[in-house]
Amino acid sequence: MEGFLVYDKQISTAVIKRLPRYYRYLGDLLEKDVVRISSKELSEKMNVTASQIRQDLNNFGGFGQQGYGYNVLHLYTEIGKILGLDKKYNAVIVGAGHLGQALANYSDFERRGFKFRGMFDVDVAKIGMSVGELKVMSMDELEGFVKDNKISIAALTVPKTKAPQIANNLVEWGVEAIWNFAPTDLNLPNTVLVENVHLAESLMRLSYKINAKD
Amino acid sequence: MEGFLVYDKQISTAVIKRLPRYYRYLGDLLEKDVVRISSKELSEKMNVTASQIRQDLNNFGGFGQQGYGYNVLHLYTEIGKILGLDKKYNAVIVGAGHLGQALANYSDFERRGFKFRGMFDVDVAKIGMSVGELKVMSMDELEGFVKDNKISIAALTVPKTKAPQIANNLVEWGVEAIWNFAPTDLNLPNTVLVENVHLAESLMRLSYKINAKD
Repeated sequence: MEGFLVYDKQISTAVIKRLPRYYRYLGDLLEKDVVRISSKELSEKMNVTASQIRQDLNNFGGFGQQGYGYNVLHLYTEIGKILGLDKKYNAVIVGAGHLGQALANYSDFERRGFKFRGMFDVDVAKIGMSVGELKVMSMDELEGFVKDNKISIAALTVPKTKAPQIANNLVEWGVEAIWNFAPTDLNLPNTVLVENVHLAESLMRLSYKINAKD
Repeated sequence: MEGFLVYDKQISTAVIKRLPRYYRYLGDLLEKDVVRISSKELSEKMNVTASQIRQDLNNFGGFGQQGYGYNVLHLYTEIGKILGLDKKYNAVIVGAGHLGQALANYSDFERRGFKFRGMFDVDVAKIGMSVGELKVMSMDELEGFVKDNKISIAALTVPKTKAPQIANNLVEWGVEAIWNFAPTDLNLPNTVLVENVHLAESLMRLSYKINAKD
């Protein structure tokens, strides 16, 4: 029942993209105290084929066992490691609007190792305001805070006109990864990791589907 | 300079996925009063090859003209039609937490034809509260509201344990499309359109990248 992780093996991005979903399902099973699951059962829950599941999970060196299936906790833990969720990340939220506040209040993130340490805004009316466990700080304090607190991730929930410059600054100050909610692309060096959440584009895909259906 | 839209032509999902990004860039150009643009210029802005751009846009029947390039407004309008943005959509937000409030306050959506008509929550402390132009209503009023106001889209920002049942109800009452922010998959009939925004999964892809880089 050992997992043989091959970290230096090239795993396709398609598989990687599916891992968070496996992780979510396995987490739900753990919450229900499910100890083991067959690829067939998992396939029915996740609405993908059992062979797809076996193929995906085989990438990590045979977590499954004939006639036993997968040990849920083990698989959850191993996929968590691949996703880097066994580590802790210090993060900040830049932009204390509704979306920034929503992120600050999302307890799921902290459970997964992402700790928001600070929240920043230009708006004097917001500075000093409490959001969850955080107090909104002035943008003037951002540079010092990022450097002093080893911040590796910044969630960017600022207007699109401000986002590129703020992202450049954050990277200069040592931030490794930007979780970008501003409806614009950031032109950052290739070494910087960016994950975009473009809500308007998501909504357009929905209206496209509505129209394509008619 | 006519666009020959072939609506019944099968356009690959890869192209469709890229259209909202084209639309966003073209909208930014319009805001800057740019009248026309070559595939080369657009390619530099968008960081994709000019041949990719020509290939993608040729799907819709030659919007470009040799030596002139693309008429920005025309292309923006035509892509908007493909994405169904020339129509209006009545939407509701179910769940008046921070994320629901963030959506209600996002003016970009309304500009694109998505009008949030109502917002609902189970929490008596939230009912009656003003969020932007909306007043939070009780979940008991949801069924009547959806039916009376021809609601076609519902944004779901409720806990994962509540989401599947609420989604089922909404569909029964006539909602065509669910914009799902709950960290769970909805098991709905194939005729219902679902667009998932799983924030925790997005954050995991970021931590994966951080770890893969080390």
